[in-house]
Amino acid sequence: MRLVSFFNQTNNTIRPGLVEQEVVIDIQHAKKLLQLTVPDSIQEIIEHYATAHKDLQFIAETARQGRLNEASYTLKDVSLTAPIPRPRKNIMCLAVNYTEHAKETAALREHGGKAPTQPVMFTKAPTSVNGPYGNIVINPAVSQQIDWEVELGVIIGKKGINIHEDEAMNYVFGYTVLNDVTARDLQSRHKQFFKGKSLDGSCPMGPCIVTADEISDPHNLALRLRVNGEIKQDGNTTQMIFSIPDMIATLSLGMTLEPGDIIATGTPSGVGFSRVPPEFLQPGDIMESEVEGIGTLRNPIVSSQQ
Amino acid sequence: MRLVSFFNQTNNTIRPGLVEQEVVIDIQHAKKLLQLTVPDSIQEIIEHYATAHKDLQFIAETARQGRLNEASYTLKDVSLTAPIPRPRKNIMCLAVNYTEHAKETAALREHGGKAPTQPVMFTKAPTSVNGPYGNIVINPAVSQQIDWEVELGVIIGKKGINIHEDEAMNYVFGYTVLNDVTARDLQSRHKQFFKGKSLDGSCPMGPCIVTADEISDPHNLALRLRVNGEIKQDGNTTQMIFSIPDMIATLSLGMTLEPGDIIATGTPSGVGFSRVPPEFLQPGDIMESEVEGIGTLRNPIVSSQQ
Repeated sequence: MRLVSFFNQTNNTIRPGLVEQEVVIDIQHAKKLLQLTVPDSIQEIIEHYATAHKDLQFIAETARQGRLNEASYTLKDVSLTAPIPRPRKNIMCLAVNYTEHAKETAALREHGGKAPTQPVMFTKAPTSVNGPYGNIVINPAVSQQIDWEVELGVIIGKKGINIHEDEAMNYVFGYTVLNDVTARDLQSRHKQFFKGKSLDGSCPMGPCIVTADEISDPHNLALRLRVNGEIKQDGNTTQMIFSIPDMIATLSLGMTLEPGDIIATGTPSGVGFSRVPPEFLQPGDIMESEVEGIGTLRNPIVSSQQ
Repeated sequence: MRLVSFFNQTNNTIRPGLVEQEVVIDIQHAKKLLQLTVPDSIQEIIEHYATAHKDLQFIAETARQGRLNEASYTLKDVSLTAPIPRPRKNIMCLAVNYTEHAKETAALREHGGKAPTQPVMFTKAPTSVNGPYGNIVINPAVSQQIDWEVELGVIIGKKGINIHEDEAMNYVFGYTVLNDVTARDLQSRHKQFFKGKSLDGSCPMGPCIVTADEISDPHNLALRLRVNGEIKQDGNTTQMIFSIPDMIATLSLGMTLEPGDIIATGTPSGVGFSRVPPEFLQPGDIMESEVEGIGTLRNPIVSSQQ
């Protein structure tokens, strides 16, 4: 199942949607027509998926039979927001989770280029969330070194603490694409990464959440990052140092994970600041972030002074 | 004004309260009696304080006249939770904000004992929030180095971005006491601080939020931490390296602050791991965290195996 959130201009609200063959079904509208009781946001759908699941499948089947046309929109006609537009806590991120990226970031992060022996984790503020096609606004008075990091996002589906690696995949609701956009100057200035990772709009996400059953192997997905069509990052989740079960076990040690939690699983090599000469995003650029089997984010970079 | 949240056993809900002379007035009950429209949580009261303020003052006055006794409880008879039991994002924390503490942590944090020239900021998960008198559960399989850090907590009252230092104090709603309880082994193992700072229950807060108008100088408040009655930390917010306006200006650079955001302003010297020999909290200990003019947290340390 592919779940999205979209902006409904008529009601000025954000609604959950189900994507079937390039068509978005408005879940709120569909549930009224079919007299179902699905919750009204992707966050709540995740929380109540055990019961919502069958209703969503029924909606999808009815749509495939052409009987939900009045609740359906062509995908390109709706304005998608991040699937979870306002996460209930900060996004949890892995810092150095690809060997080649560990080497390229050695200078900035003072870890000698060696792959970390334990996951390094930081967070991005919920206010950093951006839509899959949203503008990324650059204010030179804030940062002059805005960099890209395409990542696979893992969405947690079930509450748990001290989750064993063997059980960890049962806690995954689904996957999304995200870009851990980073202000390198702030990241470096403030030592701990939170500040440089949390600028408004610096976490584009989407275009959808693909439920876990539809991704046969999340540890074998191509990731690509393009700036103005030119490939800058070209990796695969096979190259992760810490696997998804590793991350879930480590994060949940003594700390409860909850439905709707978002884990950014780290970025492959090819980020801007480690290039010679360094490259950063500039107003006018188009940044595309792609994860195989999920989709592509397309974010224009714009100046705050426009 | 002193605001609390408390657990109402009759309804199994958490309710907002107003403290007047050791009495808690149940705001939900009082507003019904007086036909007012105050919101039903401290988070929402902060968000709508411009309008809620007068109603709360009216409730307080009516209570002082003895006309709200049926909505009033003796403070020691109610079960207080953290004033904001579930923050809408991670708690934002300053890492090294007292010179003497910078010296004592030099070894672990590899900053050479010098005071930082820029604020170092990390976050604690919302799931770490604990009540002012809640148990802190130690699980030796998770951490064997649980340490204390008494801090002044700043509660943001108004949305803002790129807030100038001169305007910053207008964005402060009030103050609370918090303890940034830290698993030193995890903090060290994972480099970035998020993991070691985010264990469940590791952020006791309260007992109340004191609104900003009642604290004449937040940069001159004594802080004390006692374990089993013995003073371990004895500092004053005069010793802060970065002032509250500094923090707000730095945090809000390119990042929107929101009502209900919580900033932990750093801890003075005297933490456990830098003592010779190092000291950590043990089951059976009582940890008391006090900030002048606000109150005292009293958290028993208990074993997960009890």
